[in-house]
Amino acid sequence: MYEVYVAARFEAAHRLIGDFGPAARTHGHTYRLEVIVRGESLKDDGTLFDIGEFRGAVEDLASSLHYRDLDEVSGLTGANTTAENVARFCWESLAPDLGGRNLDSLAVRVWENPDVYAAREDPLG
Amino acid sequence: MYEVYVAARFEAAHRLIGDFGPAARTHGHTYRLEVIVRGESLKDDGTLFDIGEFRGAVEDLASSLHYRDLDEVSGLTGANTTAENVARFCWESLAPDLGGRNLDSLAVRVWENPDVYAAREDPLG
Amino acid sequence: MYEVYVAARFEAAHRLIGDFGPAARTHGHTYRLEVIVRGESLKDDGTLFDIGEFRGAVEDLASSLHYRDLDEVSGLTGANTTAENVARFCWESLAPDLGGRNLDSLAVRVWENPDVYAAREDPLG
Repeated sequence: MYEVYVAARFEAAHRLIGDFGPAARTHGHTYRLEVIVRGESLKDDGTLFDIGEFRGAVEDLASSLHYRDLDEVSGLTGANTTAENVARFCWESLAPDLGGRNLDSLAVRVWENPDVYAAREDPLG
Repeated sequence: MYEVYVAARFEAAHRLIGDFGPAARTHGHTYRLEVIVRGESLKDDGTLFDIGEFRGAVEDLASSLHYRDLDEVSGLTGANTTAENVARFCWESLAPDLGGRNLDSLAVRVWENPDVYAAREDPLG
Repeated sequence: MYEVYVAARFEAAHRLIGDFGPAARTHGHTYRLEVIVRGESLKDDGTLFDIGEFRGAVEDLASSLHYRDLDEVSGLTGANTTAENVARFCWESLAPDLGGRNLDSLAVRVWENPDVYAAREDPLG
């Protein structure tokens, strides 16, 4: 099995609703977004998935969240912007363009800081 | 599948018994402790497992090992304090409080330095 | 399940053949090589696999690629030196000596820079 990983960053504000102590105050993070695709075999050119194209898609997603209030981002409003839900949102944003490309699964990790992340990993349809 | 990760550090002494070259001398490391829980679904508040509570449990474990001789820590005496056994000890220390919380598995990585770790990962009962 | 991880670095040149934009120019990276072995149980001495021996094998592999043009390395010539193919080459270089040691699988990650890696992971025979 092969995998390819790319990372990007974005800086954004958010706050949690509920019994989350100081996380209920509006604050923010320098988020690190790590994205991994997996598949069984390489193409004739020696790639699982072109890293340049992959990196472009992940950078575009990070840019769309940069210097934003996550609680106002379409697709995140109405849900608590926990790292888990941000990971789910990023997973759902990236997955549609990754189908039909000989990839088996997609993992997205959203780091709030160097000591904390949440991730979603699921098979690609 | 979702996962949540938290990390902490502790500085401790140890030595190995057996044919381990310089590792048989009393020495020490700035250990990095990485802990990951995994589960299938999020709760209504958008969390897999509250990161604040999780981080507190991992920090408490790290504090209990900080500035200690691992070879004298209850639960580690009698076993060689390899990174593998320290990972096992940390896994067994954390697992009991993680049962019945909709979590499927627990992984613990014990880094002796930025180029070496050992880990244990197993399903939660 | 237990795992042991070691990392090493090498600095090497390469270029890709095909429609890869600037990557078709001869360039290079400070590669980071991460290697993980996994197995179900520890030996009586508390190790899955002796980290000193493991680290030596990985350092030897990294040294054999250091300050080289990867496109001229035996085992890589004729294939595009994508990170995926370098990971495959490293996997195939390390796997033969890891058989019959109670290890189940081997993973090799080849980082081209801190934001990009490719990996191969497969069971050990």
